Amino acid sequence: MSEPIGNVLVAQGGGPTAVINQSFVGVVHEARKFAQVGRVYGAAHGVSGILNEDFYDLTEATTPNLEAVANTPSSGLRSTRDKPDVEYCREIFKVCQAHNVRYFFYIGGNDSADTCRIVHEESSKAGYAMRVIHVPKTVDNDLKVTDHCPGFGSAAKFVAQAFAGVNLDNRAIPGVYLAVVMGRHAGFLTAASALGRQYPDDGPHLIYLPERPFEKKRFVADVKKMYEKHGRCVIAVSEGIVDSKGKAIAAQFTGGERDSHGNVQLSGTGALGDCLATWVKEETGIGRVRADTFGYLQRSFLGCVSEVDAREAREVGERAVHFAVGHNLDGSVAMKRVGDYAIEYFLARLDQVARHSTEMPAKFINKDGNDVTEAFIKYARPLIGEIPHFERISAPKVKKILIRKK
Amino acid sequence: MSEPIGNVLVAQGGGPTAVINQSFVGVVHEARKFAQVGRVYGAAHGVSGILNEDFYDLTEATTPNLEAVANTPSSGLRSTRDKPDVEYCREIFKVCQAHNVRYFFYIGGNDSADTCRIVHEESSKAGYAMRVIHVPKTVDNDLKVTDHCPGFGSAAKFVAQAFAGVNLDNRAIPGVYLAVVMGRHAGFLTAASALGRQYPDDGPHLIYLPERPFEKKRFVADVKKMYEKHGRCVIAVSEGIVDSKGKAIAAQFTGGERDSHGNVQLSGTGALGDCLATWVKEETGIGRVRADTFGYLQRSFLGCVSEVDAREAREVGERAVHFAVGHNLDGSVAMKRVGDYAIEYFLARLDQVARHSTEMPAKFINKDGNDVTEAFIKYARPLIGEIPHFERISAPKVKKILIRKK
Repeated sequence: MSEPIGNVLVAQGGGPTAVINQSFVGVVHEARKFAQVGRVYGAAHGVSGILNEDFYDLTEATTPNLEAVANTPSSGLRSTRDKPDVEYCREIFKVCQAHNVRYFFYIGGNDSADTCRIVHEESSKAGYAMRVIHVPKTVDNDLKVTDHCPGFGSAAKFVAQAFAGVNLDNRAIPGVYLAVVMGRHAGFLTAASALGRQYPDDGPHLIYLPERPFEKKRFVADVKKMYEKHGRCVIAVSEGIVDSKGKAIAAQFTGGERDSHGNVQLSGTGALGDCLATWVKEETGIGRVRADTFGYLQRSFLGCVSEVDAREAREVGERAVHFAVGHNLDGSVAMKRVGDYAIEYFLARLDQVARHSTEMPAKFINKDGNDVTEAFIKYARPLIGEIPHFERISAPKVKKILIRKK
Repeated sequence: MSEPIGNVLVAQGGGPTAVINQSFVGVVHEARKFAQVGRVYGAAHGVSGILNEDFYDLTEATTPNLEAVANTPSSGLRSTRDKPDVEYCREIFKVCQAHNVRYFFYIGGNDSADTCRIVHEESSKAGYAMRVIHVPKTVDNDLKVTDHCPGFGSAAKFVAQAFAGVNLDNRAIPGVYLAVVMGRHAGFLTAASALGRQYPDDGPHLIYLPERPFEKKRFVADVKKMYEKHGRCVIAVSEGIVDSKGKAIAAQFTGGERDSHGNVQLSGTGALGDCLATWVKEETGIGRVRADTFGYLQRSFLGCVSEVDAREAREVGERAVHFAVGHNLDGSVAMKRVGDYAIEYFLARLDQVARHSTEMPAKFINKDGNDVTEAFIKYARPLIGEIPHFERISAPKVKKILIRKK
């Protein structure tokens, strides 16, 4: 190996997850073991902190502190919504050069992978030896190449446990209950609601995903049918559901506010859920209809982590360092599922992961487009780890006395 | 003791909690130990199941099943929103008589205590020996006499962990974040958001309770001030906040739908949060403003239980049986806090607990009416038990190179 002795820079971009700090701490711990690594820096607030040279010197962070941070949800370095263009990436490269950064790790989604791709191109053009690795994270599970993304398992566990709970609540006081779940284009997180089922008639009884067009008429008919069957109905709806023309249903109600990426704001508003509840009330006449929007709890709730997800998030962080520092490679760390269930880690090309995202494959969605398949359950179950056991009362019924007499 | 040999009937009323089944199982297990108890019945769907004689024979429930049910959130017997009048209570009494029920335990809030009061009066008038015990539960913590209510601690733990998480999220991607918390007239659960703070600048930075009038102008000024101070602002708002005339702020936005108790619907809609977010956006010009409404997760999320709360909920169930079967008494089981922190259990009169509810005492609310006091923290901390530890990165900053040069 003939890598130059240089420094490591790690940063976190995009929406936080419950285990994003596991990857971060994996990078830091592993990087500190290599002789060719000088200092290990962490940029505050993602790429924007790089431009501001706002760095922590993590060479001087303690192990107890780093381990506590690893177990803390949400980006410990803090994050950014900046989506760098070529000009921005040149500035990143300049700062890296000034600080003798030879290994850059960016933990994020497909936008962060694209930043890595451009920074890598710019440093290559300049003949500056710098390894650039994208470390995957997203609660939406919408990255290409990899079997699944760190961050998804814990968010999926939260959604599963939330639905297991509200299903028990709805069983105690029947009515229609619907909850809006995160996921702009990919329905994985909404689909995870199915993992909270245990008894055959447990909810969610209906699941609506962004991968299938959402029609009011069919929705209302579905709810009616389930309510007649079960005397109640629990529904999971993706915030990203679209009509037959691909237009977001939510855009009709939220005033169409756009975030810095030009996307219509979906999270942080209850408008979609409230509207769907109103549709059910008006069209079915059912009295008790309630809507919740899970919102930011899904990605940041303190104390709901999938142990599988935490382990894998740590692993991708450490692997990233092996690929870059040990093997002098650039790319995006990805996971391949083998057997039932083990993971092999490999390095995908940055341009394979950058920019574009994936959706739920058709085999995970039922024919009617209102539930998931067994194939999805088999795919997702190992990712969330154990969820708490719950049980119904199992006891014989008592013979009626007064009513029999009548 | 000269109690008649008779049967036990237990039921659950009102909104579920995470530990209401601990009390239920406490009653069942303890009742099955007494020789003067024949069968132990559980009514499905609260008082409405009594009228329908819809009983489980819990004498034949197994211990593993009962213990699993105890650890399951939401009323295992299922619940009702029925609020019985005298006529209804006479019907309850008739069914009890027909089934030789000599001990009736109703687990619920102040409405359930009132049901107990009336049923007790009716059975006394009829000269029918039946002990009636109210077993307290509520996430709102608004029962009279008792120091606090089983169910509150776990809901408070959920709210604390939720705010700890969204505070970390808001720190990673700054902006204004507000979340609406349950609690129609009492602010205890919203106040519990303060228990998620650890660092001096952790959110929630503002807490609005139903006990203090909510003014738009002061609210907007508070948010502006906190945003200027911290570069971000996390806010906890009770769903029950009212204007200076005592009118619910939420009533302006929810269309004023009323539940079966004649209360305006507050839960199961995101309208209040969305409106407050719009106020902040319009009046402050801050770009990133998000609102969540925690909704039903607060009382039913699977996997967020305060161990203290679970233990106390079990205890009130068992004590209820001792008071009724062992000592031939009627009343409402209550808790007295002694030392720091232990609980003594005693029996309050039913008419002391029935109908009326309490609010947060003034000493728990700060002068400005936008936060809690240390006295509240001291009161509430022991009730939620341990919450997960979280930590920030502790490492020195790196000297800037490029920016220094400029």
